Amino acid sequence: MTTAAAPVITPDQLRQHWQGHRTLTRRMIVAFPDDKLFAYSLGGMRPFSAFAMEMLGMAVPTLNGVVTGEWKMFESAAATSKDQLLTMWDEATSEIDRLWAKIPAARFQEIDTAFGQWKMPIHGLLMYVIDNEIHHRGQGYVYLRALGIEPPPFYER
Amino acid sequence: MTTAAAPVITPDQLRQHWQGHRTLTRRMIVAFPDDKLFAYSLGGMRPFSAFAMEMLGMAVPTLNGVVTGEWKMFESAAATSKDQLLTMWDEATSEIDRLWAKIPAARFQEIDTAFGQWKMPIHGLLMYVIDNEIHHRGQGYVYLRALGIEPPPFYER
Repeated sequence: MTTAAAPVITPDQLRQHWQGHRTLTRRMIVAFPDDKLFAYSLGGMRPFSAFAMEMLGMAVPTLNGVVTGEWKMFESAAATSKDQLLTMWDEATSEIDRLWAKIPAARFQEIDTAFGQWKMPIHGLLMYVIDNEIHHRGQGYVYLRALGIEPPPFYER
Repeated sequence: MTTAAAPVITPDQLRQHWQGHRTLTRRMIVAFPDDKLFAYSLGGMRPFSAFAMEMLGMAVPTLNGVVTGEWKMFESAAATSKDQLLTMWDEATSEIDRLWAKIPAARFQEIDTAFGQWKMPIHGLLMYVIDNEIHHRGQGYVYLRALGIEPPPFYER
């Protein structure tokens, strides 16, 4: 296939972009005191641990579907300590790299119905997973500030 | 130039992605009571109006730099009412579409030093502007929830 233009972003650049965000989110998990991570929230929202477990529940299951075209039910991860959550986070980091390398280049423009529910192009689905992480992590910044804790800088990845 | 693969995302898909996020952010501005928009915050952070003005201060000035290669100082917008902020938001929406159409396809992979300070590929710069909006908008979700107001759904763009 011949295209007239350089790509906006290459598959590996998008992987690095995501993993950069995941590095920052990991720093956020570390920044929370253990008890606050699992119990503190504002406005009746979920604690930051629940956001992180939702992110874990989306990341690898989404990539499995992207690579195989088979969509298993996804469910949030279930960690009960910060150490366990960080271990799961790091396992997902490796798994994302492993699965990402298997995405056929043409797959990003294909339309699929993720988890039998969300019909969209694969690039849109992957952006959604990344955006959802940024969205909830931003909420965690408010939690940390309200706790009097300086969050890690947004621009450091 | 010949590439072996379909693109991850086309320039117009990335524009739509951003404008979809901007539609949601506009809905957030509308959701805030007028006084809370300019005065309410948590954890010593800025009110949501200041986040929106920062987003406006980044969006068109960044695109001007992307298109022209000339980086003027950027400064946050200065609105003093919700109506004024929404008018500026809508003007930026049109201006983003107008400028986006002028970005040469090869530009996304070029490295530039935005505003004389941030050296990165243009795709990374544009993603940063979008991510910064998602990040601060997520913080606004906590403000609204703490005010007892249901925010607009994250997945509607």
